[in-house]
Amino acid sequence: MLRYWTAGESHGKTLIALVDGFPAGVTVDTDAIDVELKRRQGGYGRGGRQRIETDKVDVRTGIWHGVTLGSPIALEVVNRDYKLERLDDLPRPRPGHGDLTGAMKFLGSIRGVLERASARETAVRVAAGALAKQLLAAFEITVFGYVTEVGGERIEPIEGTLDEQRSIRDQSELYGLNLDRDPAIKALIDRTGKDGDTLGGIIEVRVDGVPFGLGTHAQWDRKLDGRLAQAVMAVQAIKGVEIGMGFEAARRPGSQVHDPIHYDESKKDTPNLGYTRPSNNAGGLEAGMTNGQPIVIRAAKKPISTLAKPLESVNLDTKEPVEASYERSDVCAISAASVIVENVVAFEIACAVVDKFGGDSLSEMLGRYEMFLKMARER
Amino acid sequence: MLRYWTAGESHGKTLIALVDGFPAGVTVDTDAIDVELKRRQGGYGRGGRQRIETDKVDVRTGIWHGVTLGSPIALEVVNRDYKLERLDDLPRPRPGHGDLTGAMKFLGSIRGVLERASARETAVRVAAGALAKQLLAAFEITVFGYVTEVGGERIEPIEGTLDEQRSIRDQSELYGLNLDRDPAIKALIDRTGKDGDTLGGIIEVRVDGVPFGLGTHAQWDRKLDGRLAQAVMAVQAIKGVEIGMGFEAARRPGSQVHDPIHYDESKKDTPNLGYTRPSNNAGGLEAGMTNGQPIVIRAAKKPISTLAKPLESVNLDTKEPVEASYERSDVCAISAASVIVENVVAFEIACAVVDKFGGDSLSEMLGRYEMFLKMARER
Amino acid sequence: MLRYWTAGESHGKTLIALVDGFPAGVTVDTDAIDVELKRRQGGYGRGGRQRIETDKVDVRTGIWHGVTLGSPIALEVVNRDYKLERLDDLPRPRPGHGDLTGAMKFLGSIRGVLERASARETAVRVAAGALAKQLLAAFEITVFGYVTEVGGERIEPIEGTLDEQRSIRDQSELYGLNLDRDPAIKALIDRTGKDGDTLGGIIEVRVDGVPFGLGTHAQWDRKLDGRLAQAVMAVQAIKGVEIGMGFEAARRPGSQVHDPIHYDESKKDTPNLGYTRPSNNAGGLEAGMTNGQPIVIRAAKKPISTLAKPLESVNLDTKEPVEASYERSDVCAISAASVIVENVVAFEIACAVVDKFGGDSLSEMLGRYEMFLKMARER
Amino acid sequence: MLRYWTAGESHGKTLIALVDGFPAGVTVDTDAIDVELKRRQGGYGRGGRQRIETDKVDVRTGIWHGVTLGSPIALEVVNRDYKLERLDDLPRPRPGHGDLTGAMKFLGSIRGVLERASARETAVRVAAGALAKQLLAAFEITVFGYVTEVGGERIEPIEGTLDEQRSIRDQSELYGLNLDRDPAIKALIDRTGKDGDTLGGIIEVRVDGVPFGLGTHAQWDRKLDGRLAQAVMAVQAIKGVEIGMGFEAARRPGSQVHDPIHYDESKKDTPNLGYTRPSNNAGGLEAGMTNGQPIVIRAAKKPISTLAKPLESVNLDTKEPVEASYERSDVCAISAASVIVENVVAFEIACAVVDKFGGDSLSEMLGRYEMFLKMARER
Repeated sequence: MLRYWTAGESHGKTLIALVDGFPAGVTVDTDAIDVELKRRQGGYGRGGRQRIETDKVDVRTGIWHGVTLGSPIALEVVNRDYKLERLDDLPRPRPGHGDLTGAMKFLGSIRGVLERASARETAVRVAAGALAKQLLAAFEITVFGYVTEVGGERIEPIEGTLDEQRSIRDQSELYGLNLDRDPAIKALIDRTGKDGDTLGGIIEVRVDGVPFGLGTHAQWDRKLDGRLAQAVMAVQAIKGVEIGMGFEAARRPGSQVHDPIHYDESKKDTPNLGYTRPSNNAGGLEAGMTNGQPIVIRAAKKPISTLAKPLESVNLDTKEPVEASYERSDVCAISAASVIVENVVAFEIACAVVDKFGGDSLSEMLGRYEMFLKMARER
Repeated sequence: MLRYWTAGESHGKTLIALVDGFPAGVTVDTDAIDVELKRRQGGYGRGGRQRIETDKVDVRTGIWHGVTLGSPIALEVVNRDYKLERLDDLPRPRPGHGDLTGAMKFLGSIRGVLERASARETAVRVAAGALAKQLLAAFEITVFGYVTEVGGERIEPIEGTLDEQRSIRDQSELYGLNLDRDPAIKALIDRTGKDGDTLGGIIEVRVDGVPFGLGTHAQWDRKLDGRLAQAVMAVQAIKGVEIGMGFEAARRPGSQVHDPIHYDESKKDTPNLGYTRPSNNAGGLEAGMTNGQPIVIRAAKKPISTLAKPLESVNLDTKEPVEASYERSDVCAISAASVIVENVVAFEIACAVVDKFGGDSLSEMLGRYEMFLKMARER
Repeated sequence: MLRYWTAGESHGKTLIALVDGFPAGVTVDTDAIDVELKRRQGGYGRGGRQRIETDKVDVRTGIWHGVTLGSPIALEVVNRDYKLERLDDLPRPRPGHGDLTGAMKFLGSIRGVLERASARETAVRVAAGALAKQLLAAFEITVFGYVTEVGGERIEPIEGTLDEQRSIRDQSELYGLNLDRDPAIKALIDRTGKDGDTLGGIIEVRVDGVPFGLGTHAQWDRKLDGRLAQAVMAVQAIKGVEIGMGFEAARRPGSQVHDPIHYDESKKDTPNLGYTRPSNNAGGLEAGMTNGQPIVIRAAKKPISTLAKPLESVNLDTKEPVEASYERSDVCAISAASVIVENVVAFEIACAVVDKFGGDSLSEMLGRYEMFLKMARER
Repeated sequence: MLRYWTAGESHGKTLIALVDGFPAGVTVDTDAIDVELKRRQGGYGRGGRQRIETDKVDVRTGIWHGVTLGSPIALEVVNRDYKLERLDDLPRPRPGHGDLTGAMKFLGSIRGVLERASARETAVRVAAGALAKQLLAAFEITVFGYVTEVGGERIEPIEGTLDEQRSIRDQSELYGLNLDRDPAIKALIDRTGKDGDTLGGIIEVRVDGVPFGLGTHAQWDRKLDGRLAQAVMAVQAIKGVEIGMGFEAARRPGSQVHDPIHYDESKKDTPNLGYTRPSNNAGGLEAGMTNGQPIVIRAAKKPISTLAKPLESVNLDTKEPVEASYERSDVCAISAASVIVENVVAFEIACAVVDKFGGDSLSEMLGRYEMFLKMARER
């Protein structure tokens, strides 16, 4: 059982992810984790905080000579902008944040809630996911996220191989797959920022190389589609999740939705075992299990909740109308969100792989993976 | 900690939900549960199975003289159409179902997977949710689900009080909130059925009377939005979940998304403690916690996967192309799905209420609820 | 992940265990489960209830043609002595039971607590464990429990093979391994019963055929010794648990406690991989993991709490001193407890096997088991 | 839901405990945590490592101005003796440790297992427990552990108030409650050390001030006796756990075991609500729930597994007989173990308090606690 939790406040000393149940024998590339952390800090439309922080992961436990031991792995990203002890409470709750509701729930300050509710926490969720990707790489499973919409403007992905698409994405300041769309969208972000307003967008994550049988149909709380939906919806500011054709599937007849099953002998030795599908509207998941096709999952991110042109709020003491507080913030963080969701998905897929294939050690897991493919081909 | 799991196959002897951690002191109305079971079997576009089954719940454990004891509650719905032992394996996997993927995962039969993957299981998920609603009723929390789209056709809800809307829904064969739309949509279902095709749709569930502070922002796996998303996405055939404004929030600037905070002294004694919001685009959830506003959640259901005009498939033994198997099925089950999602949401809200307010016994929970409202008003 | 929960009251309609995560492909022998249920009802010193009940398991879900499907398995044992709805509350709490504390916790009746707290519930825990043994059998793992003390009187086990010991145990009315001791102990039970008193005792369970590596050292809540201790201590009336040499290990120097490690090439193909130990004071568990030796675990059961010669109690309404209530009960149930603990241990071992080896299907698990032995031998 | 996990290796960079679900509003006294850490390092019979380490806790997250926020709390104890990267594998597995079994399970090195299996990890389990005690203090619940046996030599506790006993314990180099016994036992430890041997012992922990109703009888995995047994047995080197009279209860008739129930009006306002018991053989737990009496739990610790006079072992490569490796170690660590078990018990009690009383915030929990006492008195 692979699992993780995080700790840490936005302006506190540090952020920590404790990863438990990670298999032994995986060589950890901390530079590759740092690349993801840096990507999370980037994207067009970010504010001042990202210039202060230059996140680096410190693997505090669980490795020896750069290789995992099977013991818990603590990943730490220290906050350079540590100043929590000097900060005061925030007087005026900001709509869209947990300010008001947290102050009520905990009968305490707004500061005490916002510091933890902040998306700053996602730095270590990204670190955990980036670690998980290094396990997935041994099974040739890749997880790839990108932006498909910003503030209602579509970035239609250019078709191509994963490498080609990755190259495009990594050139794009928006982390989209169509560089032609970037200038117009950057202009939109600029205009929105000048208006004191903010933008959200839509993210797509694709997981390639997934074998049959991750997740299960047998119990509601172990279905992989449900697990993915939980993990993604629990990312700050996400308000919608869909798999494969998603909401559009609700609008078409079944004959245009369900993916026919074909057999292609030449693909027998790939994870799909030769069972090909001319379409992938299911997004790789049928009955809560992977079906040998790529997983495709999309998330809708609402606009940043902190507006330079503040929204209406209330003074919690006097109950008088006031403008909401303003804390330094971004205009648009959809690019960062694509990195977060990508890595959050990666972690859940790694959990499902561990659930299916083991695993105390990577060598045992790989042996089992081959054995499973063989048994399934011969079924 | 309130939790539940289910057991049972589609054509097996029975279906069981085991509910653990339900508070003592709740009077159980089994007729009210049966009403939900009957609603789940109804709706326009259903097939022959629903004429065989007339589901009734049997509360097998956990109550004495009709009142819960705080011990586990086993809810049973017996299958009248029990015939599993006489059934053969299904030879040709049906696209959209777990047939192919389950046969690979478990290295076994298709029958062995489809029987459990079937939405027949939702009968006891509905029973568990209907039980949960009886706990919620003590806190004047209501959970109300209805259909807003069928096969791309919108059923725009008529505004009204909950009672008025419930009256409309219960007159509608589609479980929508606009009777004027029903004839056109029934005709669409009829046409689709004649074509051997199927339809899906969109469901909305609204939870009224929710206090502040259900769920938490503090850890990703305890955020209520994530929990709701998991529960709903884990319902058979659901491919998308959104909260409040959902995907549309990704398309608008923040100033048109985030709900201003007002204060209305006259509402001080309601669950929102006087903190009113002129809009509810957040759908009642900010930072993974309830904010005193109604929870609004939508789900996209794909069309029924079993088509009378079968899709392309493969014979698993010969690998030759064949038509998919056909098992008796419905043309459209979106109305039933609205009942299922309503009750699944109800259970998760009850979990969150138990998490926040207790609870060994209902009397203690109610005392705590009042105490919390008082402390929060005085914060 | 294999797991289970139970539901049901002592005089309610029924008892149910819901087993989730049990692998597909195991042929279920219900007669073998019934043998365990009958053994649980037997033993010298039992009272009238056991003459009313003749427990039989009904496998309600999760199998097809007698073979598990990988879906949840609901095991039911119906109460012949169903009369809960006719029973009144119990006025005077019985020391040793949950009567007083449950009435306070739930602010309710004593009846409502005692019905669930009763050891009647263990019938389905035994059923779940007996099912688990059928999975373990495929790995040639056996779980064997017997009584070693009754009311302070020792039943020194006769050495022998498992079959020989099983034969002795099954002849003994006390479920001990030394028939010579039975007459004296039966006389003690008779005398105690005449005095209106009750007896407890000590149970030992041995698990043979266990491979290396069940459980883990890596996180406190996944150590197998801790899991076993929880499961056993959570059996009604158990007040102590020890592994291997147990408390005696605290009294000896390390040189007389720790088991030397030898290597015997001829044992290379057994689960211990050739690593033999001249003693087994560790009881098969080092650092929370199995070490290839038999697991040995002992439990101390307190005497039955309901005494014919009642203990001092208090009327909860008047607070006046009274004698505790008397409900039909046994003089000594240590033999039954040995069956319960044996089966509870079996379930936990099966969980650990599933955690280590899989498992969606038994065939895949067996392949992995062989692969692991091979890899470990070649390490 | 209060929960925690740890990370860290014995000679790694650091040790971390991540505590999730700790209520807001608790003022954290880090000096008090450091006192426990220092006590854990002390006791007669310790070796060289304890002179290198001078453990101090660093509360890395979850507090603001010294008060908990309700967000996860990361507790860190840095290893001064960090040298893992310079250390080699251990060639010869030590009996009693996880060396052999871990090397097999993970198909890897001994070093990679022993570093995590080491009791060094308990430093942060103590820190987590010491934090939990600060929550319990608000409810006037105290947790107090001491040594009652060393190597078979009994330290009979002197009766007295908690303060008196604490004063004795804190003067004792053995952490016992009878200073007269210390010289003889220290001499025993000295002799044993000269022989190259080691000693274990027995610990008792008492929890005073516990209200009715922590834990539950309703489901096996939520019974408090089972949870305590798991937590304690999962401490390194513990081989036995007993509650109240424990194993001795198995040897006496029921009339001498079960604690009569009396009522003493003058105690009505204490946590026992006036329900007094002339004895406490149940150790405060009946049917998996607290009964208003002190919890009493004992643990048996085996002798240290690393002997200066090494035990027989095997070279894992050649399979030749060799002496086990020797790593710097203690002769006797029973005093440290008493600190560890005390704090591990404290954490579980805090979990049960949070389960029963809340809790988002301490102020709300305290209000609920008073409300429960009032309702229970009036039941």
